[in-house]
Amino acid sequence: MLSFESDYIQGVHPQILENLIKTNMEVQTGYGFDKYSESAKAKIKALCGEQSEVFLLNGGTQTNQIVIDTMLESYQGVICADTGHINSHEAGAIEFTGHKVITLDNELGKIVPKKLSSYLSLFFKDENHEHCVIPGMVYISHPTEYGTLYTKDELKAISAICKEYSLKLYMDGARLGYALASNGSDVTLSDISNLCDAFYIGGTKVGALCGEAVVFTKNNTPSHFFTCIKQHGALLAKGRLLGVQFDTLFTDDLYFKISKNAIEKADTLRQVFKEKGYNFYIETTTNQIFIILSEAEYEKLKKNVAVGFWERLEGNRVVVRFATSWATTDNDINALIKVL
Amino acid sequence: MLSFESDYIQGVHPQILENLIKTNMEVQTGYGFDKYSESAKAKIKALCGEQSEVFLLNGGTQTNQIVIDTMLESYQGVICADTGHINSHEAGAIEFTGHKVITLDNELGKIVPKKLSSYLSLFFKDENHEHCVIPGMVYISHPTEYGTLYTKDELKAISAICKEYSLKLYMDGARLGYALASNGSDVTLSDISNLCDAFYIGGTKVGALCGEAVVFTKNNTPSHFFTCIKQHGALLAKGRLLGVQFDTLFTDDLYFKISKNAIEKADTLRQVFKEKGYNFYIETTTNQIFIILSEAEYEKLKKNVAVGFWERLEGNRVVVRFATSWATTDNDINALIKVL
Amino acid sequence: MLSFESDYIQGVHPQILENLIKTNMEVQTGYGFDKYSESAKAKIKALCGEQSEVFLLNGGTQTNQIVIDTMLESYQGVICADTGHINSHEAGAIEFTGHKVITLDNELGKIVPKKLSSYLSLFFKDENHEHCVIPGMVYISHPTEYGTLYTKDELKAISAICKEYSLKLYMDGARLGYALASNGSDVTLSDISNLCDAFYIGGTKVGALCGEAVVFTKNNTPSHFFTCIKQHGALLAKGRLLGVQFDTLFTDDLYFKISKNAIEKADTLRQVFKEKGYNFYIETTTNQIFIILSEAEYEKLKKNVAVGFWERLEGNRVVVRFATSWATTDNDINALIKVL
Amino acid sequence: MLSFESDYIQGVHPQILENLIKTNMEVQTGYGFDKYSESAKAKIKALCGEQSEVFLLNGGTQTNQIVIDTMLESYQGVICADTGHINSHEAGAIEFTGHKVITLDNELGKIVPKKLSSYLSLFFKDENHEHCVIPGMVYISHPTEYGTLYTKDELKAISAICKEYSLKLYMDGARLGYALASNGSDVTLSDISNLCDAFYIGGTKVGALCGEAVVFTKNNTPSHFFTCIKQHGALLAKGRLLGVQFDTLFTDDLYFKISKNAIEKADTLRQVFKEKGYNFYIETTTNQIFIILSEAEYEKLKKNVAVGFWERLEGNRVVVRFATSWATTDNDINALIKVL
Repeated sequence: MLSFESDYIQGVHPQILENLIKTNMEVQTGYGFDKYSESAKAKIKALCGEQSEVFLLNGGTQTNQIVIDTMLESYQGVICADTGHINSHEAGAIEFTGHKVITLDNELGKIVPKKLSSYLSLFFKDENHEHCVIPGMVYISHPTEYGTLYTKDELKAISAICKEYSLKLYMDGARLGYALASNGSDVTLSDISNLCDAFYIGGTKVGALCGEAVVFTKNNTPSHFFTCIKQHGALLAKGRLLGVQFDTLFTDDLYFKISKNAIEKADTLRQVFKEKGYNFYIETTTNQIFIILSEAEYEKLKKNVAVGFWERLEGNRVVVRFATSWATTDNDINALIKVL
Repeated sequence: MLSFESDYIQGVHPQILENLIKTNMEVQTGYGFDKYSESAKAKIKALCGEQSEVFLLNGGTQTNQIVIDTMLESYQGVICADTGHINSHEAGAIEFTGHKVITLDNELGKIVPKKLSSYLSLFFKDENHEHCVIPGMVYISHPTEYGTLYTKDELKAISAICKEYSLKLYMDGARLGYALASNGSDVTLSDISNLCDAFYIGGTKVGALCGEAVVFTKNNTPSHFFTCIKQHGALLAKGRLLGVQFDTLFTDDLYFKISKNAIEKADTLRQVFKEKGYNFYIETTTNQIFIILSEAEYEKLKKNVAVGFWERLEGNRVVVRFATSWATTDNDINALIKVL
Repeated sequence: MLSFESDYIQGVHPQILENLIKTNMEVQTGYGFDKYSESAKAKIKALCGEQSEVFLLNGGTQTNQIVIDTMLESYQGVICADTGHINSHEAGAIEFTGHKVITLDNELGKIVPKKLSSYLSLFFKDENHEHCVIPGMVYISHPTEYGTLYTKDELKAISAICKEYSLKLYMDGARLGYALASNGSDVTLSDISNLCDAFYIGGTKVGALCGEAVVFTKNNTPSHFFTCIKQHGALLAKGRLLGVQFDTLFTDDLYFKISKNAIEKADTLRQVFKEKGYNFYIETTTNQIFIILSEAEYEKLKKNVAVGFWERLEGNRVVVRFATSWATTDNDINALIKVL
Repeated sequence: MLSFESDYIQGVHPQILENLIKTNMEVQTGYGFDKYSESAKAKIKALCGEQSEVFLLNGGTQTNQIVIDTMLESYQGVICADTGHINSHEAGAIEFTGHKVITLDNELGKIVPKKLSSYLSLFFKDENHEHCVIPGMVYISHPTEYGTLYTKDELKAISAICKEYSLKLYMDGARLGYALASNGSDVTLSDISNLCDAFYIGGTKVGALCGEAVVFTKNNTPSHFFTCIKQHGALLAKGRLLGVQFDTLFTDDLYFKISKNAIEKADTLRQVFKEKGYNFYIETTTNQIFIILSEAEYEKLKKNVAVGFWERLEGNRVVVRFATSWATTDNDINALIKVL
């Protein structure tokens, strides 16, 4: 059985595993003060600029919850596309901490600068806006939940709007590696550090067993952030688990190399889909490919390939997702091509 | 440098590491539906009885937060000893979810049944108690934060009081393995399953890199508990990380064997302390030993041995903690004895 | 200066004031156990059926917050029209208690049964719905924020859908008196008691200085509701303030009579607007009338009449609201007509 | 039946009632922007200094909840005496907003400066304190729940400690009038404004039907405080209800005069108790008197006088509370003396 279901179906990149093995019996201080965590943070900081500070957390929803809750004042809400992960698939983790998720209609999974600007302009002009949740942050995911990417111009525009209205800009980078490695992207890590107030570099979906690296970019780490992590139930006693993983990922560009692998495999696959005349649900240049199939085609495919079921369309059609990852091999791709 | 600072200074038990390696590239479903999680849960359930249901979470504070929040009604609080971890060292993770921690004076780190009974009796007799937080649960840690243990009689008494007043009984088993392996304990896992409504079997401090196994003992899993885990930011995409660890720990009694190792090493150490005339701060039979030292002795010791600093006493004395673990070797103990 | 700005610009109905004066120096028990609160609750219960239980709270947002928070499980959200008060103008009071507000597109300020049904059907069919906020309640306002009313058939349909999916149905009746008195309504208080799980009878906008009467209709008062009121900061020491007001409102049908006054005045006004060729923004039969004016007309009107500014339309037009109330007199109406 | 049960058993001071009647049909803007609220706030500000800002809320628990929640960072807790109202009788309203209440042993209902200083010193010296709730505020009640008062020296000492450790000092003045009118007090309103960061002037127990006036003393109103009031469900549409009451209380020193009445009556009563040889449970100089009675005496007393039952002591004795108020008359006192 072939599996293109998601990018978190396999364990950890072998190089990380090797380092976990090598360091296993070393004595290390707990709670993230081990030398690997320190090293990982220093390496990421070096990529993100002098004003950045880095923290390692366990998972994406946890990271979104903690960053949003600690960066917002208690009376503020966070704006996101209606398709945003925090709005749709995080079980209310943001509202759990008291903050409203304010949605804007997405276009291709993205927030449109014009709509954002128009919303904020109307909001603050409304004489009664003090009776409402005050927007305090814009949340974007890059790549989005639909595998699409913000252009540098879009990012700049959103960042400028945020500055104009004193909102923070936060990027969910659960699959950030795949965005940076995409040939369709003109956005660099440095751009992100410059334009966002905070973002995270996803590990779980890019080679780690667990772990996300949060970056506050402007000497703007929320006060007592360590205590806040613990308060949210997110502090690991053996922080080394995260430290070793991110230290390895950011040694010799491993994070970028394995992300590139996923993109190359996806590009090959995209090409094949095109040649074979498949219908794309949405155009992407990252590791997620959304294809429209007839029910019959889907039923047949399922016998050999596990894919992600996305949604049902009119006319007995379905949308399925093919995801490649750091672990996808040429063999996997060739085997898939044979059954397409 | 010798290290007896805590029981989470080293990585993961080698047998677990081996299984992580072996299963690493297998394709497994996410979110805890992998076959290792299923197997681990089945093995733990077999030990805890037909009415039990098992969930795997990442860390202790997280587990306490989620279990307490989901088992309590929103107007209820949780009773614990003033020394209880949720009261003292979890950064307010319980209050973060809206629940008051109601403290009783501890004796040797434990809740005293008589005090509990007296508190509850007075509380519910008070005509104004509807103006107060309603106690809904008793939280105990076993071993306690001071390494002490509840006797079976104490546990029965507390359980009976809880039943009388319709409170839930929840046990924090961050170091449960070390309690069960202690020669000073008459409490079995089966007793715990019978007497508590919920408890967790600690992994992080007993051989795992991370992970705690929550057991609801009476067909009493909180409704939509999976969703609640996600809402609290605690759901891992690669649940296999927890699954493989607990599956290994509960195969061939590994959890109990490695706990026994820690106890044997601690027992040897305790004997040596006694023979050498050291003053014990508190009598324990688990893997934590609390010794009173003069400042001078402490300064000297610190040059060779990392220990846990506990507190400062009058008369220029300090309390330090020596902790053994699943990883402590005879060599470690012998080396320590030489410098005592 | 004439004022049709809102229905809370004047104090309290004279009959209530008289009873406040009469009872002022009487000794009464605190916290809602005074005889007037008891009497008020009994009178409302008599109208709402044997299974109902009544509580008196201070304001609308407070009432929505407490009822929704106590009726929902902590992992549940509440569905409402995007125009619903809890979504737009309560400063995130619902999210403050941890619950997501899930919005459906409104039609004339109302939830459309078909859209609700379709949303719920899709939601529960989605295999991943346990990663999402579980809908636990439908919130409707009657009259809506746009002064419109649900028909009995619509209410029945929504109630049936709620039953099918095990959701609670809750009605925000901030202006309920004006709904019940409307000639355009076929919904009675008894219908509401039968079809909703909870609702409130608004006092603040219908003759009281403050106060809303919550009705749980099916022996379904949330557990320890008194304690929950206090926990939410909403318990008045001198509950008599609410008791005397609602006792008066529900003696000799005062609540219904003064509501009728508002409707009669609004009906007269509506007729005049029609005759004079004004454009209605939305058709209503309650005490709120929404009229489209040119900017010039609006500027002229403002010199003599205070109205509610609603929104700006394309083409230099604005929507304004004229609200009548229990306190509106024939003189007020005649004076207004003169300047129209 | 005589009643000395509490200071909230009667309605509103006649002068306030008169002004409510007089202003009843006036058109006033909602949400606290009416002219009476503006006037009341200006009058209180004049008493509390140029840097002060005043807000009107409905009740004591609500006020404590909102002030504490908005002045604290989300990771901070509030220190109070174990007998403090927020710890004992507010149903967890503080924890509901996520903040831990950290208790110190009281002496006569008060926080002892030395204990506070010692607690804070130890806390911040503890290397692990970032794993704990960070204290961010000291809450004191004045008079305390036991009717006792802080001296100016005590208040200065606590204020200085708060400054040293960057904590806010907040005073719960539910009965502040009775403190200021007490002959046993050397603390003025001006002292309180100088030494506290925030406090409230209680209305409910000092002549109002409802209402407390919050004072932020140092140009330190929490950001978007209006929105926060609404978010906590505490904004009244008809803010005039609070405005008229406080405007009247702070015209011609009414607040201070009626407080003085309660003290004079209590002083007379205290003298009689002393002469008749009654045992005082605690010495007070405010409007609350705590007397120890035998069960038999209590049973006899109850036939003629409603008093507050406080607690049961060993030896078949009970503590009861006699409370005077703005409404207590010479006749009430004389009648009580006759049955003592």
